[in-house]
Amino acid sequence: MTDASPTPVDRGTPPVIVLVEPQLAENIGTAARAMLNCGLTDLRLVNPRDPFPSERANAASVGALEMMPPVKIFDSTAAAVADLNMVYATTARERKMVKPVLTPRAVGELAVQAGRAGRKVGLLFGRERTGLEKDDIALADAVVTVPLNPDFTSLNLAQAVLLLGYEWYQAGDSTPPRVLESHGSPPATKDQLYAFFTHFERALDECGFLRNAEARPNMIRNMRNMWGRAELTEQEIRTLHGVVKELTTLREKK
Amino acid sequence: MTDASPTPVDRGTPPVIVLVEPQLAENIGTAARAMLNCGLTDLRLVNPRDPFPSERANAASVGALEMMPPVKIFDSTAAAVADLNMVYATTARERKMVKPVLTPRAVGELAVQAGRAGRKVGLLFGRERTGLEKDDIALADAVVTVPLNPDFTSLNLAQAVLLLGYEWYQAGDSTPPRVLESHGSPPATKDQLYAFFTHFERALDECGFLRNAEARPNMIRNMRNMWGRAELTEQEIRTLHGVVKELTTLREKK
Repeated sequence: MTDASPTPVDRGTPPVIVLVEPQLAENIGTAARAMLNCGLTDLRLVNPRDPFPSERANAASVGALEMMPPVKIFDSTAAAVADLNMVYATTARERKMVKPVLTPRAVGELAVQAGRAGRKVGLLFGRERTGLEKDDIALADAVVTVPLNPDFTSLNLAQAVLLLGYEWYQAGDSTPPRVLESHGSPPATKDQLYAFFTHFERALDECGFLRNAEARPNMIRNMRNMWGRAELTEQEIRTLHGVVKELTTLREKK
Repeated sequence: MTDASPTPVDRGTPPVIVLVEPQLAENIGTAARAMLNCGLTDLRLVNPRDPFPSERANAASVGALEMMPPVKIFDSTAAAVADLNMVYATTARERKMVKPVLTPRAVGELAVQAGRAGRKVGLLFGRERTGLEKDDIALADAVVTVPLNPDFTSLNLAQAVLLLGYEWYQAGDSTPPRVLESHGSPPATKDQLYAFFTHFERALDECGFLRNAEARPNMIRNMRNMWGRAELTEQEIRTLHGVVKELTTLREKK
């Protein structure tokens, strides 16, 4: 029986999100919402322009801020990351700095490794329009740049937080890339499938669909392949037996 | 010389985004913005509740709608996807349907493969609160579910579009996971690095820092490893020679 629910995995200590000089209370709220979507709950602010906490931030977070521990506020980036072991600075722009540039996926993997080893990781996000200051970037271990359409890079704060949080969540996730949801109806056994082949092909022989003896073997194989791709359940096999039976009966009645 | 710009890649025909019965004009705009962030430009709407086009949608798109070809409007999901070859339905909920469930990453990879083969892929998104109807899901090849925090799954429309578009973009992307930006300053050669080791270690010998003969070899190796991890450029090696020289001079003056 398949089931889409991932087995619980230990992602270790989740990364801390640090918003440096966010301008609008709404953006703090939407960033918090994106964080909680990804299971992140440690939000820190460096000199927010709008007062915080605020009703505007709470409303924009759609309940996320109330479900998270209190947000911490700092007066410098260095103070906000003081207890962390690794810090990554998100920026879209090229800087005149010799600095490793990582993808969000690489950072997600590093952050899961670090979190499982009990190390604390921080992700820095700059202010809405201008991004992080060079001095803040110089405090970080590396820069993270999201590979996206270079002709239209205006990601808002919450979207940037979402993509980094999403990659952290995926790096620690065990959801299979593809699973067949069958909701309690088990996949058919091969014996059940082949019994349906027999029933179906007998009906096709009887109605004359397979009368071309030369083409018959290939037509049968093609249809068996088609049914095979459908990954039929026991219940569906029963339904198909019924369909073939009724169609045959209808034809006999005519 | 390293450079973070990815080499151009052929992603093939990009997926089409189909919003089924979107309620708010703003959400059409923010979804369009997320699309264009990911290089997607074919947006189709099925029975939008708010009038479209609209100034509210345009404003929320931050210019994206003006940069994209005209949005097409349809009166049924079947009509909106009529010319497509593969259709994936995004949904967070468990449905009583026997249907493959894919991750966004798996869909991104399938969509790049399909697009490169000239096939057209559509991604269906349902209305804001209630998602896709069962009949729309039954029209799709598979369901896509984003693995995220099961205790707080409220992704808004634009965020869902962003994550799917992001995965498509990444699947066709060649940005290396990590690159050292050096902005024209080439990495030092080993000869330059080892010449700095010699200068640095001679200075440490002269000042007495390495006087413990037993510990000396290990201390030297540790510091060479530390410098090695820093991936120094030619310019930085020159700067460090200067630093050691000045520190030595200062000490001699005392």
